[in-house]
Amino acid sequence: MMLSLDSLIEQALLEDIHTGDITTQALIPADSRSSARLIAKEELTLAGLFVAEKVFKRVNADVEFTPCLAEGAQAAKGALLATVRGNTAALLMGERVALNLLQRLCGIATLTLRHVTAVAGTGARIVDTRKTTPGLRELEKYAVRVGGGINHRTGLYDGVLIKENHIAATGGIGEAIKRARAYIPHTLKIEIETETLTQVDEALANGADIIMLDNMSLDDMRSAVAAIAGRALVEASGGISLETVRAIAETGVDIISIGALTHSARAMDISMLLD
Amino acid sequence: MMLSLDSLIEQALLEDIHTGDITTQALIPADSRSSARLIAKEELTLAGLFVAEKVFKRVNADVEFTPCLAEGAQAAKGALLATVRGNTAALLMGERVALNLLQRLCGIATLTLRHVTAVAGTGARIVDTRKTTPGLRELEKYAVRVGGGINHRTGLYDGVLIKENHIAATGGIGEAIKRARAYIPHTLKIEIETETLTQVDEALANGADIIMLDNMSLDDMRSAVAAIAGRALVEASGGISLETVRAIAETGVDIISIGALTHSARAMDISMLLD
Amino acid sequence: MMLSLDSLIEQALLEDIHTGDITTQALIPADSRSSARLIAKEELTLAGLFVAEKVFKRVNADVEFTPCLAEGAQAAKGALLATVRGNTAALLMGERVALNLLQRLCGIATLTLRHVTAVAGTGARIVDTRKTTPGLRELEKYAVRVGGGINHRTGLYDGVLIKENHIAATGGIGEAIKRARAYIPHTLKIEIETETLTQVDEALANGADIIMLDNMSLDDMRSAVAAIAGRALVEASGGISLETVRAIAETGVDIISIGALTHSARAMDISMLLD
Amino acid sequence: MMLSLDSLIEQALLEDIHTGDITTQALIPADSRSSARLIAKEELTLAGLFVAEKVFKRVNADVEFTPCLAEGAQAAKGALLATVRGNTAALLMGERVALNLLQRLCGIATLTLRHVTAVAGTGARIVDTRKTTPGLRELEKYAVRVGGGINHRTGLYDGVLIKENHIAATGGIGEAIKRARAYIPHTLKIEIETETLTQVDEALANGADIIMLDNMSLDDMRSAVAAIAGRALVEASGGISLETVRAIAETGVDIISIGALTHSARAMDISMLLD
Amino acid sequence: MMLSLDSLIEQALLEDIHTGDITTQALIPADSRSSARLIAKEELTLAGLFVAEKVFKRVNADVEFTPCLAEGAQAAKGALLATVRGNTAALLMGERVALNLLQRLCGIATLTLRHVTAVAGTGARIVDTRKTTPGLRELEKYAVRVGGGINHRTGLYDGVLIKENHIAATGGIGEAIKRARAYIPHTLKIEIETETLTQVDEALANGADIIMLDNMSLDDMRSAVAAIAGRALVEASGGISLETVRAIAETGVDIISIGALTHSARAMDISMLLD
Amino acid sequence: MMLSLDSLIEQALLEDIHTGDITTQALIPADSRSSARLIAKEELTLAGLFVAEKVFKRVNADVEFTPCLAEGAQAAKGALLATVRGNTAALLMGERVALNLLQRLCGIATLTLRHVTAVAGTGARIVDTRKTTPGLRELEKYAVRVGGGINHRTGLYDGVLIKENHIAATGGIGEAIKRARAYIPHTLKIEIETETLTQVDEALANGADIIMLDNMSLDDMRSAVAAIAGRALVEASGGISLETVRAIAETGVDIISIGALTHSARAMDISMLLD
Repeated sequence: MMLSLDSLIEQALLEDIHTGDITTQALIPADSRSSARLIAKEELTLAGLFVAEKVFKRVNADVEFTPCLAEGAQAAKGALLATVRGNTAALLMGERVALNLLQRLCGIATLTLRHVTAVAGTGARIVDTRKTTPGLRELEKYAVRVGGGINHRTGLYDGVLIKENHIAATGGIGEAIKRARAYIPHTLKIEIETETLTQVDEALANGADIIMLDNMSLDDMRSAVAAIAGRALVEASGGISLETVRAIAETGVDIISIGALTHSARAMDISMLLD
Repeated sequence: MMLSLDSLIEQALLEDIHTGDITTQALIPADSRSSARLIAKEELTLAGLFVAEKVFKRVNADVEFTPCLAEGAQAAKGALLATVRGNTAALLMGERVALNLLQRLCGIATLTLRHVTAVAGTGARIVDTRKTTPGLRELEKYAVRVGGGINHRTGLYDGVLIKENHIAATGGIGEAIKRARAYIPHTLKIEIETETLTQVDEALANGADIIMLDNMSLDDMRSAVAAIAGRALVEASGGISLETVRAIAETGVDIISIGALTHSARAMDISMLLD
Repeated sequence: MMLSLDSLIEQALLEDIHTGDITTQALIPADSRSSARLIAKEELTLAGLFVAEKVFKRVNADVEFTPCLAEGAQAAKGALLATVRGNTAALLMGERVALNLLQRLCGIATLTLRHVTAVAGTGARIVDTRKTTPGLRELEKYAVRVGGGINHRTGLYDGVLIKENHIAATGGIGEAIKRARAYIPHTLKIEIETETLTQVDEALANGADIIMLDNMSLDDMRSAVAAIAGRALVEASGGISLETVRAIAETGVDIISIGALTHSARAMDISMLLD
Repeated sequence: MMLSLDSLIEQALLEDIHTGDITTQALIPADSRSSARLIAKEELTLAGLFVAEKVFKRVNADVEFTPCLAEGAQAAKGALLATVRGNTAALLMGERVALNLLQRLCGIATLTLRHVTAVAGTGARIVDTRKTTPGLRELEKYAVRVGGGINHRTGLYDGVLIKENHIAATGGIGEAIKRARAYIPHTLKIEIETETLTQVDEALANGADIIMLDNMSLDDMRSAVAAIAGRALVEASGGISLETVRAIAETGVDIISIGALTHSARAMDISMLLD
Repeated sequence: MMLSLDSLIEQALLEDIHTGDITTQALIPADSRSSARLIAKEELTLAGLFVAEKVFKRVNADVEFTPCLAEGAQAAKGALLATVRGNTAALLMGERVALNLLQRLCGIATLTLRHVTAVAGTGARIVDTRKTTPGLRELEKYAVRVGGGINHRTGLYDGVLIKENHIAATGGIGEAIKRARAYIPHTLKIEIETETLTQVDEALANGADIIMLDNMSLDDMRSAVAAIAGRALVEASGGISLETVRAIAETGVDIISIGALTHSARAMDISMLLD
Repeated sequence: MMLSLDSLIEQALLEDIHTGDITTQALIPADSRSSARLIAKEELTLAGLFVAEKVFKRVNADVEFTPCLAEGAQAAKGALLATVRGNTAALLMGERVALNLLQRLCGIATLTLRHVTAVAGTGARIVDTRKTTPGLRELEKYAVRVGGGINHRTGLYDGVLIKENHIAATGGIGEAIKRARAYIPHTLKIEIETETLTQVDEALANGADIIMLDNMSLDDMRSAVAAIAGRALVEASGGISLETVRAIAETGVDIISIGALTHSARAMDISMLLD
């Protein structure tokens, strides 16, 4: 899927191994073979097993990696996620990079699913933001999808989000939307950030495709949803947590974007055990 | 300091901007200039301001970036961290990447300092692990130092850590240390992981430079420290948290290594506000 | 604007100069300085002068490059486009790469403007396709904008275009649109390719944002526009030339996409003359 | 043959696919398989089929690509050029990049062959120039050879071409040739550009290996050929087209160099049809 | 072992072959197959055969490469080192790069072994320095190990060596060691350069792990060894040659570091003969 | 001159410094400034001072580097080659890489000049081969020119050298030359390797531009020179040393190619002394 994943893994391995794993080179016979198991040390939503596989295979193409659960599966504490078999040195050299990536992706998928579950039945969808780890955005957005979320724009290049500063520079919401419409590919929607109901009205009047409600009160959100009445997508944003997400979803917004999915997800605890 | 930082920033910007910030290109006049402030939205230990500066200057070499606090400073909630002045489009295009990096590094420095403070007076030192974000290890280890910690080996190439699997493959602690000593540069110490006091004795008898106590009880740690009696460095490791770190330090160990410093640090909340 | 432009220019120069311009090294004194003029040898729409400037400055940072016309200007035959002043060897070494890029971009802008002019007053907009030169897509799409066109999606990653094969694989237009809507960022519109009026109706009924009319007759286009009645954007596509574009625009379509803008634009004739 | 072809294809695919083909990912089952045919939509000289093959195989190593005609073959309108079989998503994702490259290379080979045919029997050879597409020079020069032409120097590094500016900087043709001979590898010939018969005589007297006649009249070319009398290769250059190339060849020149072969070749029309 | 070896070989091949081996392309049929032998033209210690193998396989993956001697073996003059079989063009295109690397590595291993042999029985170990060929350090340090030496630090990043300038900048040996200990990973030893016995005493008193004796007389070395008495490793350094190395070893130093192992090793004479 | 020199230096610095010079970071104040002198510790021909300058400036752009002798100058033992002034850490971090490159290039220039001097007055020219250090070919060939030699082809791509194997594959010298002439750019000469006078005659009869005499006796060389009589360039090759080069030159050959210039040049002894 991701053409650039190979080079990401190459860089990660070089960062950790660089000129060689001197402990392993000194101690492990070059032809020693082992098998190992990847085990969930806590309950988690599985995401990124194919990344771990690619890591081991980049170290040694002959490593056999057998997934035991599918992407998106709920793994219980103690669950076997995958087995790895092959050259012992390769298993030891790939272990840390494989786990560093896998633990992070599972963390994001797990956290996303909790939010998705929290809003179940409301019709609201959970989406991510650009607050991702530099270098890992594609993978982290993948993990959000595995957790049941959808993705906001990937970067500044594939979506239009007109913020306060953009509006100020152009002299008003109407003019900003007009200029954007004239410039951007016709395949993209225009989203605009609003902080007041007056701005919501103005955005709506000028044909915004998506209206973001930034840090609004629940009452204002409800009013905005009523005013927009399906003529634009409504996105809630700003400091949303597991505690507050349900109430926000119940205001009737279509989309809830949450930076914490990627910047605050805790790494899940996963171990590799040699048999 | 870090020669490869330029390429890391280049990649991070390409990931976010790629073919262009279409919103900004459509709406912000090319010659518009602005100033902005980076503000701490919560109390934090500052780390990585020079990284943020490099991000903005890579977007536009003429941006002026003025740090208002020094690396390692404690910033109160609301504190002004830096001012940025220059081409408006450049400020908007660099904002997210600069903050994504800065917020993470401040998070690590802040969490490290909390652990360092927790063990104050005991003589124990807080160190990191290889459980870092792929691609960001150098920066994350820098943030640990800013927070008052020191660094464990950077990767598999610049330190020897003999684990259970290595011992098994060589037939015993004595043989493993002997082989490692014959292979590695004479400039490196040899560290060995132990799980029992018997292993500690064996490591000591064979001249290990550093003895890691892996997931030992407080009592066992105290016994190990007494047995080693300064003849090797003693490192505690395994699932250590802010709650448990003080008691561990009081056992007399020299070094406490904590993966959570890098894999579980929450991003600090920092905003860029245009004036 | 384009972060990756530096590396494109680096590659182009390496391709031409590689280990050195041996003629110039053998014959031109290292401290010789010259000035030169870039001259249009035929009428053209100017696009890409900043690219030529970057080429010369990459060869030698001290070269002074002074544009004499603005991007998008119509240059008459014989018009002075820019002057270049600096190290003689640098001018000679940068000349070919600078012209190779500039001539191509002017060719695209010129051809685009001819199409834009041809449809003036109809409301139809001229857009490009993915039929661009490998490696030069960003620059070529920029030249299309300079010529008054707008851009279709940049690549497969920032726009959805459901074609015949996609429809066949999912079992129908309705199901295809539904699945796409569930998967893609909410910031993107969904475009679908149609070949018959029946398909147009089906696309419309299922909420397509953009309906492409692929190689339809003028009569069918008129019928489609009438049927759609503003509920989706209408894009004409398929073998469109300067001869046919006006008639197509007059059917009332919103968008006309033309591969020839980038794959068939002839290089404009531009010379560099040393004074 | 070309070691760098892999990275060119990698870049071209990244340019088009980047983070993924979202339409295909949303709609095409990951295990779907298809076969397709590459069809010439107009008569053409085939060049670059192995490049198209490499594109598909880079997307998915298991794609089977079966050429149906040999490089250099004349393909009639409607001719089957190759079949492609494999993962459906891979076929769809590789299609555009494969065709963009193949169509261009066929265009160059076709145009070259027309020139070669036009001079048949005269002894003159058709050669290309450095007016190639940045990044594609190797491939484009390959296509010229497929079309029956030969290549001029690849770049500034592997051939000596002394132009007006070089002569001016050294004080005369004689001095320029002498200095070049002292500097360059003994394996390279020295070519010099002349605009008058007097310059031709001077070049000849000073031992030039190749004498370029730049934009000379047919009469002057004939006189130059007579004067040189086989003591140097004679190359005609400057604004040569299919209309004028035969008359130029009949003056007796050895070599005719034509920039249009690469900068003005129209892309041939080739389609990929899924079965 | 070395992840970056692939890219080193890629660069070396590109440097030599670039756009193609024009002689071979012109003359050798594309399907011609040959076998060849790598022969030692003088007595040598074999190092780097796997590098030569990788070179040929990068040119053509189907080349069969059969080592006839093991790494570290002593090859007599005329000895067969390996056979290579496969596409003739691939053999001819890979030959020079393969030999350039192999001859150098054998040269280093051979020279190292001579030094190791010269100190046999003394307990002193031969180590390399950072005076290696830019780009080839990993390979050259590997060849030193093959020759029976061990490696000093790989670079500035994985070892501490406090020199005169560092001492001057910190105000004394004691302060320098203290600051280094506070900054560096606890896994690294601290080495300090000394030029007098007074400095040796000071280094010892401040807990240096390794004391380098820089250009000391044999008498001073003996005194230093006696004074240190096993409390630190002792390293002799500075202008050491095959003529002087035995006497130095007999002073009782632990380590002898020699720049000439890598910067003055003569390339061994090895030929590839096609059968 | 060399566009790729920047990346070579970048790689060399990364190889040595990687994540940082930990000794210097621990001990040298970040704002400390120093000056230093590059001193020849033995007589040498200076080559590559601009490379050393670029190394220091890549570490810190503010370093001032002042050459004290010109490229090609003869430096006496003890001569001051250049002064370097700037940030102390930058001087210490750049020192080793700068010297590693400079010492090697001076070694090559010095050795070349000795050969050039040895053949003075004979008319023969000294040239290098492809037996260069992987990654450093451009620089090493530059050093050969500085030492008064000229360069053979840079690689397989910019010169034709028909060897025994090529002849065998084509069925004879005549056919080989004919095929090469038909394939290669008309700007390149054709060189052919001969081992007997019969082959020399055949090469001459078939219009070879350069005839290489491979390992011939002095008598055979004299006969070959007489037979060729200026109709082709004559190049002597094979195991030539300072002892034998004069006698070979006196046979009347035009060109003498010597692999030892690059693969056996000893590094010159150069030191950097901080003031």
